[in-house]
Amino acid sequence: MGAFSAGELRSAVGELDGWSIGENDIAITRQFRFADFTTAFAFMTAVALKAEAMNHHPEWSNVYSKVDVRLTSHDAGAVTDRDLTLARFMNGVASRLSAQA
Amino acid sequence: MGAFSAGELRSAVGELDGWSIGENDIAITRQFRFADFTTAFAFMTAVALKAEAMNHHPEWSNVYSKVDVRLTSHDAGAVTDRDLTLARFMNGVASRLSAQA
Amino acid sequence: MGAFSAGELRSAVGELDGWSIGENDIAITRQFRFADFTTAFAFMTAVALKAEAMNHHPEWSNVYSKVDVRLTSHDAGAVTDRDLTLARFMNGVASRLSAQA
Amino acid sequence: MGAFSAGELRSAVGELDGWSIGENDIAITRQFRFADFTTAFAFMTAVALKAEAMNHHPEWSNVYSKVDVRLTSHDAGAVTDRDLTLARFMNGVASRLSAQA
Repeated sequence: MGAFSAGELRSAVGELDGWSIGENDIAITRQFRFADFTTAFAFMTAVALKAEAMNHHPEWSNVYSKVDVRLTSHDAGAVTDRDLTLARFMNGVASRLSAQA
Repeated sequence: MGAFSAGELRSAVGELDGWSIGENDIAITRQFRFADFTTAFAFMTAVALKAEAMNHHPEWSNVYSKVDVRLTSHDAGAVTDRDLTLARFMNGVASRLSAQA
Repeated sequence: MGAFSAGELRSAVGELDGWSIGENDIAITRQFRFADFTTAFAFMTAVALKAEAMNHHPEWSNVYSKVDVRLTSHDAGAVTDRDLTLARFMNGVASRLSAQA
Repeated sequence: MGAFSAGELRSAVGELDGWSIGENDIAITRQFRFADFTTAFAFMTAVALKAEAMNHHPEWSNVYSKVDVRLTSHDAGAVTDRDLTLARFMNGVASRLSAQA
């Protein structure tokens, strides 16, 4: 539940395809690109269900087929396991939605 | 735009993985199965966007990870190109969402 | 958590606008009607988020602007508090979405 | 279809509750606030369906219960009727979702 040391965070995020550490280690970010708006919004819907179930919500923006995400744990003022769990979930859904049919 | 002959319909639906012709040829149906409710609802959201853009909507039911769909063109009282287009779209999204990440 | 007595169930459902008890008291059902498909699907999305967060999911079908819902607690083989909680949530969202703007 | 004169734009946006003109008149913006994430995402879903049907999509970000929207017509490099139509749609949905149940 707790925050990570700088080394632990680098190691954990290093295994998360596409994610970067920003802002003095208090958040992680990634841009997702999809084929079109419909696919981007299907991704957002899957993430919304997961986020609500976790009670841990992303900061995100969407322009057509792109979704920019920032994850942080406000209560900890840091990146925590919850952010990594949500990031991993996002990568899984995005990977499937971007696959060739 | 028009309805198909019985032979044309059989041929067209034969190329649509998982779909069946029912009810004296006036509708086509398919059951989709996903890993969980979240994936099923992401599928439904992508389909909802497409359906609204086509102004051609499915009849569908959902129980957890399963989605049962019936497509018909009420104005034609038959299966038309619009049903086949929406069925193809559904198959594409479902195929991607069911792919191994 | 437990199931209700027949009298308790009647009393509880009697306070839930639009819901009926069916099938030997093992489920409750309601039909929701909205202005159009978009409003119906916005309703379904709000309910999907709540359902996933509760890990308690509806059986439901949608045809254009109508959503038919059946709620039961499969593990209990009966109607439980979880069904009433989800039914109340649905009524709240539907009431707001049907309000005059 | 075309862009508005500065006076026409001011007049049109003046009738749109909550919207502001920004950036040399090339975009309009509004922040929507809802009761919670679920309501915010139901709003976004209704808007997503409308946007896809119009083939005119918002630039938007979401943090929990807030949704920030920027509308512009990229092809025109200006605010057009399509932006006003989508803004009016958003206001209608938001008004209903924020109503007391």
